[in-house]
Amino acid sequence: MTARRNRQWLLAKRPVGMVSAANFEFRDVPAPMPGADEVLVKILYLAFDPAMRGWMEDRPSYIPPVALGDVMRGAAVGQVVASNDASLPVGSHVSGFFGWQEYAIAKRGGALPIAEDTELTWPISVLGITGLTAYFGMLEIGKPQPGETVVVSGAAGATGSIAAQIARIQGARAIGIAGGAEKCAWLRDVAKLDGAIDYKSEDVGARLSELCPKGIDVFFDNVAGPILEAVIDRIALRARIVLCGGISGYNEKEPPPGPRNLMNLVRQRARMEGLILTDFAPRRAEGTAQLTAWLREGKLAHREDIQVGGIENAPRTFLRLFSGENLGKQLLRVGAPEETR
Amino acid sequence: MTARRNRQWLLAKRPVGMVSAANFEFRDVPAPMPGADEVLVKILYLAFDPAMRGWMEDRPSYIPPVALGDVMRGAAVGQVVASNDASLPVGSHVSGFFGWQEYAIAKRGGALPIAEDTELTWPISVLGITGLTAYFGMLEIGKPQPGETVVVSGAAGATGSIAAQIARIQGARAIGIAGGAEKCAWLRDVAKLDGAIDYKSEDVGARLSELCPKGIDVFFDNVAGPILEAVIDRIALRARIVLCGGISGYNEKEPPPGPRNLMNLVRQRARMEGLILTDFAPRRAEGTAQLTAWLREGKLAHREDIQVGGIENAPRTFLRLFSGENLGKQLLRVGAPEETR
Repeated sequence: MTARRNRQWLLAKRPVGMVSAANFEFRDVPAPMPGADEVLVKILYLAFDPAMRGWMEDRPSYIPPVALGDVMRGAAVGQVVASNDASLPVGSHVSGFFGWQEYAIAKRGGALPIAEDTELTWPISVLGITGLTAYFGMLEIGKPQPGETVVVSGAAGATGSIAAQIARIQGARAIGIAGGAEKCAWLRDVAKLDGAIDYKSEDVGARLSELCPKGIDVFFDNVAGPILEAVIDRIALRARIVLCGGISGYNEKEPPPGPRNLMNLVRQRARMEGLILTDFAPRRAEGTAQLTAWLREGKLAHREDIQVGGIENAPRTFLRLFSGENLGKQLLRVGAPEETR
Repeated sequence: MTARRNRQWLLAKRPVGMVSAANFEFRDVPAPMPGADEVLVKILYLAFDPAMRGWMEDRPSYIPPVALGDVMRGAAVGQVVASNDASLPVGSHVSGFFGWQEYAIAKRGGALPIAEDTELTWPISVLGITGLTAYFGMLEIGKPQPGETVVVSGAAGATGSIAAQIARIQGARAIGIAGGAEKCAWLRDVAKLDGAIDYKSEDVGARLSELCPKGIDVFFDNVAGPILEAVIDRIALRARIVLCGGISGYNEKEPPPGPRNLMNLVRQRARMEGLILTDFAPRRAEGTAQLTAWLREGKLAHREDIQVGGIENAPRTFLRLFSGENLGKQLLRVGAPEETR
């Protein structure tokens, strides 16, 4: 057997404004060997999320920034191809933050076995950060009640699509905002939302007024910017706004101004609250189990946008999130499983 | 006895941009006579609040707008000078929304008797809308804990001064932001706050960093604008922002842009919530009793800025709120009590 090579992407330069491929550096090095109690994981799929843009900046946040020269952080699923850990034999499938590379060393706890009844990609898509963020954000902060009107921005994305459907499952009227006819058709026809707004071709404010005649009780925001302002204009009494993300500003050098109408939070006694998944880490198993049940029962649709071409394509795949090209959870197929004895 | 005249201010024109005396019209009419179960109140003091700027606009809010041609709405205390209601005999003191005039007719329920142990002006100052807003906003939404850091903007104003002191009474470190050395000295020396920032002569952000090294746990905001943004930059984990008012934008034709850093609410899992006193109306007695007790025990300082010159000065007195001239609760002495048998 020839020695394995490990091709990887390092964080080379912190982004100022729009992130680009130039922020990363490609390197080809020998794959490492696992030490005591470690395994070597061959990465099969990498997952991408807009929040990763924040990890590239050198400022305090909910997790430390990626250091310059380090392999870019990223969630992945892979196959154990060498093992010094009896609990993770060669051939087993695992998920973890293995990074933008073809092989990763994982210590115990850093590689979670994938359950038999779970599709290989689910731990980094619908059961991963984005799905669980949707689950806890919608249920614990948004708290939609039957009959209430719930609006979700970035609704065709990995987090938004799950959040909107959870609102629908709770008996609320769920309206999604997304960019483009194809995404909106998916929201209506597959995700079975009560309405979809195409922000690229429609007047978001006018359509919100039309679709939410009694006002908006819950807003799950992935986007910020003008869409947040349009929603705040139309919130119902005691509305809850779940601040999950603000992709519209992630690549701006200067963050754009905030909504001019925060005083409407006063008039409507509304609440706006930020959400980070790590706060719900102790309840991960509960979220995973409920999402799996809804998936198996056919109540929850989800879509994965799987790019191909191997690890070379990691930066290019990441950038799809900011151009709005992705349809559902953005994944990259990095490698094929090995035959194992 | 000559017939009483009633001089009054009507809302003549809705404000666009800065409110001015030209929005009101002065009128001199005969004072009305009370009908069955009504009383005639001679107004002694009028109270002014920045929120009244909002009542002048024709748009949905927590109370209906003042109609054009109506007497401008305002809280007042007065003396019953003619009575067809046995429960409110001539000579008794009452409070109510009697408006910008010298005499008002009040029906049962529209005039509340003033308790014997209460100073005449308290029902429209520290025990009025502003004091109770501070009480419920700070305790029910801000929820300051001992040792936490609480910042209040508009801290020398009628609401802010009470809110900041309630935080101090709860055992929190209370920092006030106000305009001018005199107001800041009052906050430190009389209200006994742990710190005061003069936004007119100091760099608010730098001073907040200095005075709040562990971040800001609670912010009670009366001002919005750049001060809100400076605070959001420095919030602690799970901070609570009580949105009470936004005086910095009340007289703008276009509301100014909101804070650019709402994403920090996500990073810190912080919450921002609007407050309207009417939601706590059923608990008014509780708030009044606690505030009275703190006043009597000397734990709570408050200041009234009593202008004189009679009802003619109502618009001029109101405008003091927006130029920041007022020191504490803005009142106007409208008339002297009558001798009653």
